[in-house]
Formats: sequence, C-alpha cells, structure tokens
Amino acid sequence: MDDKQPQIALEGGGRSQIAFEDDRQSQIALTIAYRGAAFRGFARQPGQETIQGALEQALATLYHREVQTVGAGRTDRGVHAHGQVVSFGLCTEEIAEHSLGRLRSALNALTPDDIVIRFVDLKPPGFSARFSASEREYRYRIYTKSTPPLFLAPYVWWLPREHPLDIQAMKAAAELLVGEHDFTSFCVATSSRDKNTVREIRSLLVFGADHLGESCHVVQVIGNAFLHSMIRIIVGSLAEVGMRRHPPEWIGEVLEARDRTCAGQTAPAQGLTFWRVRY
Amino acid sequence: MDDKQPQIALEGGGRSQIAFEDDRQSQIALTIAYRGAAFRGFARQPGQETIQGALEQALATLYHREVQTVGAGRTDRGVHAHGQVVSFGLCTEEIAEHSLGRLRSALNALTPDDIVIRFVDLKPPGFSARFSASEREYRYRIYTKSTPPLFLAPYVWWLPREHPLDIQAMKAAAELLVGEHDFTSFCVATSSRDKNTVREIRSLLVFGADHLGESCHVVQVIGNAFLHSMIRIIVGSLAEVGMRRHPPEWIGEVLEARDRTCAGQTAPAQGLTFWRVRY
Repeated sequence: MDDKQPQIALEGGGRSQIAFEDDRQSQIALTIAYRGAAFRGFARQPGQETIQGALEQALATLYHREVQTVGAGRTDRGVHAHGQVVSFGLCTEEIAEHSLGRLRSALNALTPDDIVIRFVDLKPPGFSARFSASEREYRYRIYTKSTPPLFLAPYVWWLPREHPLDIQAMKAAAELLVGEHDFTSFCVATSSRDKNTVREIRSLLVFGADHLGESCHVVQVIGNAFLHSMIRIIVGSLAEVGMRRHPPEWIGEVLEARDRTCAGQTAPAQGLTFWRVRY
Repeated sequence: MDDKQPQIALEGGGRSQIAFEDDRQSQIALTIAYRGAAFRGFARQPGQETIQGALEQALATLYHREVQTVGAGRTDRGVHAHGQVVSFGLCTEEIAEHSLGRLRSALNALTPDDIVIRFVDLKPPGFSARFSASEREYRYRIYTKSTPPLFLAPYVWWLPREHPLDIQAMKAAAELLVGEHDFTSFCVATSSRDKNTVREIRSLLVFGADHLGESCHVVQVIGNAFLHSMIRIIVGSLAEVGMRRHPPEWIGEVLEARDRTCAGQTAPAQGLTFWRVRY
C-alpha cells in the first residue's frame, strides 16, 4: 500500500521501469471492485490467483501480448476493493480496437466473478494509477453484536462485545492521528517496503452504518498514501481504545514511540475495503 | 408462504396437528436470519439440507428428543431471511435447562454458519410463529447497473438496463395492489397450497437503497400473509412496468383477470428476503 515516491520509480529499476517504458502511450484506467477472499492479494505472483494476475491475463487475451498494469494500492490478501484503480498503456491501434464500453464488457467476461470492472477511462500519457494518485480512501467495518454477522460476515471484523465500544473515545483517539506524522508504530515492523515512514492522514472518522439490515461501525481513513498494514494497525489500536483498555491519549503515545510493538493488533484483512482514489 | 387459516390447522390433520399437540407448553420463538443459497428452502425435507431441518437437528441434540418447529413463512429455495420467526414448545423442565441466552449461543454453535439465531424469546402457551403472526414484511432487491453487482450479487436480481427503470410507474402500479384482493393472478398456478386466494397487502413501496457501496431498488411488501411465490410474481410484474413494457394500469387488469398467465415472470428467489414478522 506504499505509493509515495514517483522519483525512485521513474528513475527505473525492475518492475517500475516496465510500467514507465510506455511513457508516451495513452493510458487506460480501470476502476475495479473485488472480493478479497477469492484471491491471494492484489499483486501478481507466479502460480497464484491474484487480482493483478487475473486482470493481466484477461488483457493478454484481448491484446495478444503481455500487458503490465499498475495499481493505486497493493491490497493485502483478504482485503476488498470498492474503487481500486489499475492503469496500463495501450498504443493508438490497440485503443482503436475496442471501444471503452466494449473493453469493460470484455474484461468483466474474461475475469472471475469476484472482480468487477466498474469504469474504464482513457487517460493522457504519463498517467499512473499509482503515482498520479493524490488521495486514497479506505473503510474498515467492525461488527460488535454478540450474535455473529450473516450477510456482512465476509466484510467485517466480528468483535463481539458485552458492552458497546466507546465510540466517543475512538473518535478522540482518531483525531490524534490526523496530520503528517511518522507512522513507524503503525507499520509492519519487518516491512522493507517503507523507507520513508512519514505519511499524511487527512481525515479519520468513525461512524455507524447499516447494510442489508446489519449494523456496524465504520472507520473511514483518507490520506495521501499508507504504509504496509497501516490502516489495519490503526484500526486494531482504535479498537483497544473502544474496548476501554487504553484512554484516547494512548494513541498519541504510540505515535511518539515509533515502535510497532507499542500499537494494538493488526485488525483482520476481511474488514478492510479500499474505497476510492482521487487524482 | 401461505399462513392464513388457523381454524383448519387447529382442527388437526397431519403436520399442523403436531404443532398444536403441545398447546399447554410454553413456546420459544427464535428470530433467525439465513442465506438462502446454502439450503434447499425452509421446510424440512428428508435427506435435504433445509433451514427447518438444521434447526430441528440442533434442537434434538440439545433436548435429546424430536422437537417440531413452526415457521412464520415457508420461504422457497434461495430466498433469504433477516427476521424469520420459528417457534416450538418446551416443557417446564426443558425451559429451566438452558437460559434463553445460552440457548441462543448453543443454537448458533450447532447450526451452519449460514443461519444466525438473532433473538430467543419466551412466549405463552398457544403461541405459534405461523398462526399468531399479524403481519409479514418481505423486501426484494433489484440491481440495474450494466456492470454486474459484486458485494450484493447473492442478494439481488440483476436486471441490467440501458435506460433506468421507470420507478414512478412502478410506484403507481404498486398502489393498485394495496388492499384486500383475490391474488390468483399472482400465485403459482399449480400450487394446491392456496385454496383461499384472498390476501391483504397493507403497504407496497418502491425505494432506493445503498448497501456496501452498491445502489439498488427495493420493493417492500407488507401484508397479513402471502400466496406461494406471490411476492416474486408481483416483483416480476412491477419490473415489466418499470421496463415500460406495460403501463401502470396493466397491473390492475392482471389482478382482475385472476389468471397467472397474465402476470409477469416470477422474479428470481435470490433477490427476496423475508424481512420481519409482527405479532
């Protein structure tokens, strides 16, 4: 989910270079939704069913060549998307080959049912789903009833509570994370992906929602970009506050510590949905 | 889904008699939700996985005897429930054996994940989930975007439309069905379950909803009781009006005709949810 440094990627090396080889090609941006449970994460992996792999296989079928894609966020295994964006370059002849509407239908037909291509847009050369993104939004759902969720079961973290979560305390804690901070405490300690651990959270809200007759709490996080597992560790930590194991101020102490072991658990992947990208 | 004539049932004969043998026993009412796709309908059938069958098997494990249950509505294969009610009689010793809270946990543990026991209530002798019900509510979801639904896929009828449904026309047509009518045209022609085909629809509304980021139309039907497939045929007929194949007044003609072949198709089971029962 780390997507911050276009410079490094533009300077080339490995996969990133491939994505930028076609700098003068027009770009296609797909807005896609998927159910995380059906895949081993977003990023392509040889021999594994991944979202990027399934898309690239469909594109190879359509264009009779290898098509490398770039995603706005590399969601982990089990994480869902409502509005992930994936881009790739096409040459003029390829763009003329299928209308955008037909491309959408073809991709929906050629990919598994657990991926839906919602929109297809033509973008100027140089556009990258990853590096052109200015803002990303994730939503995390927590279900706290003592009886298990049913219709929402695949899309929530079930945290059965005898007493309701202290939502006011969670909101107060959430406010301490808004702004530009070093989020080392909220990043997988072993991750080598994230050398620069400063990120900006623009909005972090906690509100209630009702879907298919079942009520849940939603943690909505908007920021420029996020470290590996950052949102899930934030949610796991806010849950500690909601369960009254720590006061809201504790979140500030965790942030200051710059130490992953100070934060709460990593909340389960299935509660998380990559909601939207802004360009 | 036909549940109208307590007299006949009280007078005995077959299954109904069994349900009323324990007239002096206290009754337990379970409010349950389930995903229709996982079962071959509500009603017990030897050798088939049904909702009633799964509940009765769990009750037999708990009480070491056969426990016969009565459901508020016999939902067809594929139909979901948010608030189905199921009742059964227990003797005083059996009621003392498990608290209601423990009974709920035990039933949730002993039934498949596709059934959730949401509430357990103690009711006076003579209570029947079926015959004591005064009002039933069903909701039907229609998804009309040209791209397939994802998170809502198992819970909607996907009716991809180039032009949006004419919701105003559907509302006008729906109003013609409100009241006490002979619903022969909206009942499975081969059904022998329904001798008296007069039912009262108290409210029939069409409105929009958004679940998990996906928008759909909801047809909400409230009535005393319903004939076999009645709601699905009503929805299939309202959809004809929504697609501008017939004007709203056509629904009145269909009603008058008392002939199933005049109405629209039976809308697919998976869009239907048994929402609530009032006593």
